Amino acid sequence: MSRTVIRGGLVVTAADEIHADVLIEDGRIAALAATGTPAAEAFTAERTLDATGKYVIPGGVDGHTHMEMPFGGTYASDTFETGTRAAAWGGTTTVVDFAIQTRGGTLREGLDAWHAKAEGNCAIDYGFHMIVSDVREETLKEMDLLVEEGVTSFKQFMAYPGVFYSDDGQILRAMQRAADNGGLIMMHAENGIAIDVLVEQALARGESDPRFHGEVRKALLEAEATHRAIRLAQVAGAPLYVVHVSAREAVAELTRARDEGLPVFGETCPQYLFLSTDNLAEPDFEGAKYVCSTPLRPRDHQAALWRGLRSDDLQVVSTDHCPFCFSGQKELGRGDFSRIPNGLPGVENRMDLLHQAVVDGHLTRRRWIDIACAAPARMFGLYPKKGTLAPGADADVVIYDPHAEQVISARTHHMNVDYSAYEGRRVTGRVETVLSRGEPVITERAYTGHAGHGVYTPRSTCQYLD
Amino acid sequence: MSRTVIRGGLVVTAADEIHADVLIEDGRIAALAATGTPAAEAFTAERTLDATGKYVIPGGVDGHTHMEMPFGGTYASDTFETGTRAAAWGGTTTVVDFAIQTRGGTLREGLDAWHAKAEGNCAIDYGFHMIVSDVREETLKEMDLLVEEGVTSFKQFMAYPGVFYSDDGQILRAMQRAADNGGLIMMHAENGIAIDVLVEQALARGESDPRFHGEVRKALLEAEATHRAIRLAQVAGAPLYVVHVSAREAVAELTRARDEGLPVFGETCPQYLFLSTDNLAEPDFEGAKYVCSTPLRPRDHQAALWRGLRSDDLQVVSTDHCPFCFSGQKELGRGDFSRIPNGLPGVENRMDLLHQAVVDGHLTRRRWIDIACAAPARMFGLYPKKGTLAPGADADVVIYDPHAEQVISARTHHMNVDYSAYEGRRVTGRVETVLSRGEPVITERAYTGHAGHGVYTPRSTCQYLD
Amino acid sequence: MSRTVIRGGLVVTAADEIHADVLIEDGRIAALAATGTPAAEAFTAERTLDATGKYVIPGGVDGHTHMEMPFGGTYASDTFETGTRAAAWGGTTTVVDFAIQTRGGTLREGLDAWHAKAEGNCAIDYGFHMIVSDVREETLKEMDLLVEEGVTSFKQFMAYPGVFYSDDGQILRAMQRAADNGGLIMMHAENGIAIDVLVEQALARGESDPRFHGEVRKALLEAEATHRAIRLAQVAGAPLYVVHVSAREAVAELTRARDEGLPVFGETCPQYLFLSTDNLAEPDFEGAKYVCSTPLRPRDHQAALWRGLRSDDLQVVSTDHCPFCFSGQKELGRGDFSRIPNGLPGVENRMDLLHQAVVDGHLTRRRWIDIACAAPARMFGLYPKKGTLAPGADADVVIYDPHAEQVISARTHHMNVDYSAYEGRRVTGRVETVLSRGEPVITERAYTGHAGHGVYTPRSTCQYLD
Amino acid sequence: MSRTVIRGGLVVTAADEIHADVLIEDGRIAALAATGTPAAEAFTAERTLDATGKYVIPGGVDGHTHMEMPFGGTYASDTFETGTRAAAWGGTTTVVDFAIQTRGGTLREGLDAWHAKAEGNCAIDYGFHMIVSDVREETLKEMDLLVEEGVTSFKQFMAYPGVFYSDDGQILRAMQRAADNGGLIMMHAENGIAIDVLVEQALARGESDPRFHGEVRKALLEAEATHRAIRLAQVAGAPLYVVHVSAREAVAELTRARDEGLPVFGETCPQYLFLSTDNLAEPDFEGAKYVCSTPLRPRDHQAALWRGLRSDDLQVVSTDHCPFCFSGQKELGRGDFSRIPNGLPGVENRMDLLHQAVVDGHLTRRRWIDIACAAPARMFGLYPKKGTLAPGADADVVIYDPHAEQVISARTHHMNVDYSAYEGRRVTGRVETVLSRGEPVITERAYTGHAGHGVYTPRSTCQYLD
Repeated sequence: MSRTVIRGGLVVTAADEIHADVLIEDGRIAALAATGTPAAEAFTAERTLDATGKYVIPGGVDGHTHMEMPFGGTYASDTFETGTRAAAWGGTTTVVDFAIQTRGGTLREGLDAWHAKAEGNCAIDYGFHMIVSDVREETLKEMDLLVEEGVTSFKQFMAYPGVFYSDDGQILRAMQRAADNGGLIMMHAENGIAIDVLVEQALARGESDPRFHGEVRKALLEAEATHRAIRLAQVAGAPLYVVHVSAREAVAELTRARDEGLPVFGETCPQYLFLSTDNLAEPDFEGAKYVCSTPLRPRDHQAALWRGLRSDDLQVVSTDHCPFCFSGQKELGRGDFSRIPNGLPGVENRMDLLHQAVVDGHLTRRRWIDIACAAPARMFGLYPKKGTLAPGADADVVIYDPHAEQVISARTHHMNVDYSAYEGRRVTGRVETVLSRGEPVITERAYTGHAGHGVYTPRSTCQYLD
Repeated sequence: MSRTVIRGGLVVTAADEIHADVLIEDGRIAALAATGTPAAEAFTAERTLDATGKYVIPGGVDGHTHMEMPFGGTYASDTFETGTRAAAWGGTTTVVDFAIQTRGGTLREGLDAWHAKAEGNCAIDYGFHMIVSDVREETLKEMDLLVEEGVTSFKQFMAYPGVFYSDDGQILRAMQRAADNGGLIMMHAENGIAIDVLVEQALARGESDPRFHGEVRKALLEAEATHRAIRLAQVAGAPLYVVHVSAREAVAELTRARDEGLPVFGETCPQYLFLSTDNLAEPDFEGAKYVCSTPLRPRDHQAALWRGLRSDDLQVVSTDHCPFCFSGQKELGRGDFSRIPNGLPGVENRMDLLHQAVVDGHLTRRRWIDIACAAPARMFGLYPKKGTLAPGADADVVIYDPHAEQVISARTHHMNVDYSAYEGRRVTGRVETVLSRGEPVITERAYTGHAGHGVYTPRSTCQYLD
Repeated sequence: MSRTVIRGGLVVTAADEIHADVLIEDGRIAALAATGTPAAEAFTAERTLDATGKYVIPGGVDGHTHMEMPFGGTYASDTFETGTRAAAWGGTTTVVDFAIQTRGGTLREGLDAWHAKAEGNCAIDYGFHMIVSDVREETLKEMDLLVEEGVTSFKQFMAYPGVFYSDDGQILRAMQRAADNGGLIMMHAENGIAIDVLVEQALARGESDPRFHGEVRKALLEAEATHRAIRLAQVAGAPLYVVHVSAREAVAELTRARDEGLPVFGETCPQYLFLSTDNLAEPDFEGAKYVCSTPLRPRDHQAALWRGLRSDDLQVVSTDHCPFCFSGQKELGRGDFSRIPNGLPGVENRMDLLHQAVVDGHLTRRRWIDIACAAPARMFGLYPKKGTLAPGADADVVIYDPHAEQVISARTHHMNVDYSAYEGRRVTGRVETVLSRGEPVITERAYTGHAGHGVYTPRSTCQYLD
Repeated sequence: MSRTVIRGGLVVTAADEIHADVLIEDGRIAALAATGTPAAEAFTAERTLDATGKYVIPGGVDGHTHMEMPFGGTYASDTFETGTRAAAWGGTTTVVDFAIQTRGGTLREGLDAWHAKAEGNCAIDYGFHMIVSDVREETLKEMDLLVEEGVTSFKQFMAYPGVFYSDDGQILRAMQRAADNGGLIMMHAENGIAIDVLVEQALARGESDPRFHGEVRKALLEAEATHRAIRLAQVAGAPLYVVHVSAREAVAELTRARDEGLPVFGETCPQYLFLSTDNLAEPDFEGAKYVCSTPLRPRDHQAALWRGLRSDDLQVVSTDHCPFCFSGQKELGRGDFSRIPNGLPGVENRMDLLHQAVVDGHLTRRRWIDIACAAPARMFGLYPKKGTLAPGADADVVIYDPHAEQVISARTHHMNVDYSAYEGRRVTGRVETVLSRGEPVITERAYTGHAGHGVYTPRSTCQYLD
């Protein structure tokens, strides 16, 4: 038996803040004891980590990443190897990535392909959601099978006609199936049919710069699609999880639905909380670095997102990590914003940026851990194995220094991408040490992990619906 | 050092459900360890409690009781001795009772009087809120002092003109002071001025039966006062806690305010969740047993209360325990419902009724513990000392049998009152053993505690506002 | 010069109720004078109509009829000749019918076809809306031309995929064009893509009776489409008119939009105000008589419609007159509700049913005239030529006996259809005499008009947007 | 018989805009005929007024004036003689002024006193509302009598404790009585109890300038009182008219209530539409000119008022004319804003300012006439005698030149007050000629009326409730 004890830290979970020593046995949290008590002193272990003056927190759970994702003729620049390593550097110990069904293909084929990409390459544990691009009768049957094997969430797109787009009938069918098999429909909620008209019109007017990406993908069309998805889910009797909510008006639709008692959930991402259309308007095509969908919004939308996170109208902050290098990839869209690959790097920055939000007074410490660890774990059926520090849980633990300062930069980050969306931003707080199932992946800011440590983690169904 | 270990139970807190052994040292939770692990097996103790097949939960925190309260010329029939003993029987290990400022008197006099009633008599720990009946300049200064000594919440009444009533100016002044000193204003939100007109008119029409108590205290007048209190708090920049919310329309006002991001909180009580105006209409003056204010509402209001509890628009379930015997006390109001002493017994029934709500599917187990233990502890500045099971917390622990059945009855309850509001109701779940700071108060359904074990517990300010 | 004077009636318009004599010169209202004044006595005319004890009201404007409309392999059973004659019997003196663009065809072709059907056949004046089934670039250009020649409103369908259906991009484009050329988009707001899934599933379960028509076309899917149309219009900067609103939830969406100050309008129909799903459930396939889309709703939706009409969140009551005989036409859907031709007869009943609503206390007299005459005239650019009684207006006048009783029945009605949706219903109030541009079409309940009297009436743009 | 004909103008009413000649016989509108028709040409009269190129509109109805009102130890500076003459100059032909019950006095005494002030002194017709300051049992009985003699509306104050203030019980009782006798409760909706606390605190801080009047009378406290009045009216089953709505948040409460279908009405005033807290902050105590209650709001509240007027959530624009000279009256509050007499002059400016709103695009012409003439006439039971131009109505007619420009100034106005709240403001549109019951009061911008022409006009009950 291997034993590790972490002594003297402030253990912060979504629920509690306690001064406790943490005993790890064989990769799981065996016990917590109040620091200084005989019970704590009785803990013995081969390895002792000193967390005095630090936080001891659950490893982050990033419920939305796209490693090696094909998009617009290129691929997201992080492999599972580079991406999960960067995640670990940033204090995240579990990612849930998206396997993709191709049109005409089966869910199985897509899932197998993603298993092949990930297996043996990951520094931390991982699971899969399934992108459903093509709802056929057999697709619905496959959904049942996937739920049984731990792929319990299915993403559909109201945007990207001709690529990932599902029409309202396909969405309704998938939701009905999810209502039966316990799956959770995750929705990219933008009215892509209407947006494509506006894209075409903008380009015809010669509006080709990255900032027009933000103008055509209107907040009202995100809110519309959000409302539509909610009503379709209500008709189907199914729960709904809306990904990457960015518009104030979309938050309002979620709030309204939750006030009605509907099982509707929302995720936002650090880029919507910390960046804005000001970034999209940066000159010299630099705005392309910030092109993602839903798009960045004017700065005054941020208050609604923070309020939603505080009031639990938004439950989860994920990254939607989908990096494309500025050079050679983002540049594909010079002269036509619609050809810029959509996506931002961020898997490494999430825990730190959200800790900064604690420093800035947007969130309490416990809410930080909730939205970044506990809530995504519950949402995607990984709790309490992941997302908390409790006896029996996987020993995915981060020792976090809340006082250290750092400057975010592409020069120092570990993601395989040539820019940072947060270049030069100074934040307070830093990951010191990261354990994954008790094994040190980051040790006092050195990488001590290895590809292949991380294993596929099947998931139960959404735990918000118990 | 005294040590107790509770083995084999399912530890349920507001956040987690884990199979863990709980080690208690000198009255506090020292450690939790995953059942069956070497860490757990290493726990040694003089006393071992077997919780196999049971829940191990934090002792309940009842944030709203009125022991020995004077009302309408009589006194609530439970003393601190009988009332806290009954609380313990029902799995509650902390009560926060209301000290009362008399008109013209000081807060200090009221608080001293309540300390005198409680000290040496309680089976479990207790704290005090302060009822502010008379907002004078020196009263405001006294509020600061009380906050410093752990009385951090102040109740005002928009009802009961001539008794506890404060006008909007007095409320505003107290709220302003609370905004400065960190206190929390608790509000009895009914438009008592308007209600008194309706009472007088009803009696003049000969409508004297208990059911008219429910008719004159209109849901709209609860909603109105709730809205008014919210706006006054907004003007003052203060948080607000609305007690005993019973009307659907009042929940809607709280929901609206919380959607706006205001620090507004709401409490409901088991009687509003399980009883209705049907009870008030029971013949032969039996309806008097159910006279309390705010009053019971028509049954169709209950769905809004459950929804509010699930969506966190209501945070706390307290009892507003204020028992009056049917014989001799409730009977004071024969022929005039306005003379029926207002209040219901319930301190013993809360944990069981809310567990029944879990069985019935209204709440999850974790939400049960949240609204009954963790949330009131946080709301009133007792967390994590009370309200959770975490290393360092007071060892206020209940071993709860989720499968036992019982029938609620005045013949078997331990409250000092001659009727039960839930007479004959069969519920699933029962308290087996209760520890207060590690000491057994109830041991396998025998009372093993004693008056005077319970101590006054000063409170920090509301922890929902961090 | 021909002169008629109507003496002694109570002239009721949307604005006023006055005792006045009405002088008609050459088909137009020349003057109104207070009854009994020298001014009134000075009126001289060849023809004097005595309206003592009666109302003198503007002829009704029915903004939504479908004469001879092709649907599901058959045709609406009223021709322009029979339908406009029946309209006159019912006190309606103007209809606005829908010309239809076929898929692949031009607006012009459709409009020409409808002109051909109507010309020379109508008893009363008529105009056209244009159904846009196929939004192509040249269609948008044609819209401009039609606005110029008096076809200023364009209907699109979010239902009926493969037939009239427009996708959100086509809708957005048409709305943008309307924003430019002053046209008004009229929307059939039901999510037809989702409904078709539910239809298929219902039929697969063997649910083929007419009542399932009401169950699959869900109120939430009407509300969803209503909201979507509103947001698309908001993006386009265009006004919106939602036809045949039937669901409470759809009214709520209109109310919300109007509270936001958006130029959004709503129409309902007598069938939604007076009939319900109870009718759809009538045995022996009788429910087929009540199959229309949007469908009839449960009775408790009616209160929201009446409230919307009173509060001006709904502005217009039209008939959506689209009759199919039970025998031979409705019967096409025996065994498959989806094959029942959609539509109800009603052009003859509207004014009487709405007067009954006055009798029943749902509406004031002036609001009756507003929703049935003035508002549709304004909405569709016909005011004050049509819809009011004011000097200069067309002398489309009805003398209405508010005290006469009648029983609605297919045996006595004048529509070319073998059943009445209101068979046996007793109503108070009856049309006595109808003038169209001064000519008597109905004279003391005898038909004195003729096919060809009615002329095409070009319309200006929506007058609610001035 | 005296006859006047007005030829060639555009007759604008709340409902219609028509080219018509207007025939007046013995002080009433006898007939309207389309200009140029034989019917029009047949009109003969002793006096012909040429309105070519002008509007012919109903005389304004100002539903809220305070002539000679006692306030804060002084009196409003316009007598009924000077005030009604100024009203006529501004195109207003009816005022409804407020008689005042003193505390301890009867309604009768107050009404008699106001009759005495007005009788024989008015240039135009007038009616009375009754301010109820003291709700006693006999007061309620007097209300019935007043309704019968044409005083059908009763104002209560939620502000001004110790002066006009009624508590919620007194309000509820008066509302119940109004529900029975058809009266309309008019509410000054500000939480005066809370405001007085803020006033005292502001003065204690040395905040004595006029602008602090605006800061202490908070928008939230207007909204709160508005909501409270609505709920009390709902409990009483009574309609409600809220006077001088100025805050966006108060409009929102009215909108919410109207969406619920409640008979709730709102009035705003030109000062809230055209002035703002910027004026209150004018230096050298000039801000005192703009002190009124409810107070002026920040400029960004105006959009909500305009939207409310367009959407009919606000129905009436009155002036709340209550002038105090700057010199000697407003100056009473130097060094203490709470001693500045509350009120603004405006009876002369209302029609012009609202016409300017037409020019500016805030309102349509018909809506101008509606909110300034027809709606107040209906609201206060004067329709169609006042507020419209229809056969049988009083010949209160204004010939309005929509193209003339004027500059508002105390140097040229006719109100008995030494400043204008709109000094120097250039507006388009000007009253040319004013008839009161057919008699010329203003003739081509010369005063041709006389004190005593105007007569007391009893009113029926609110016509919005039919």
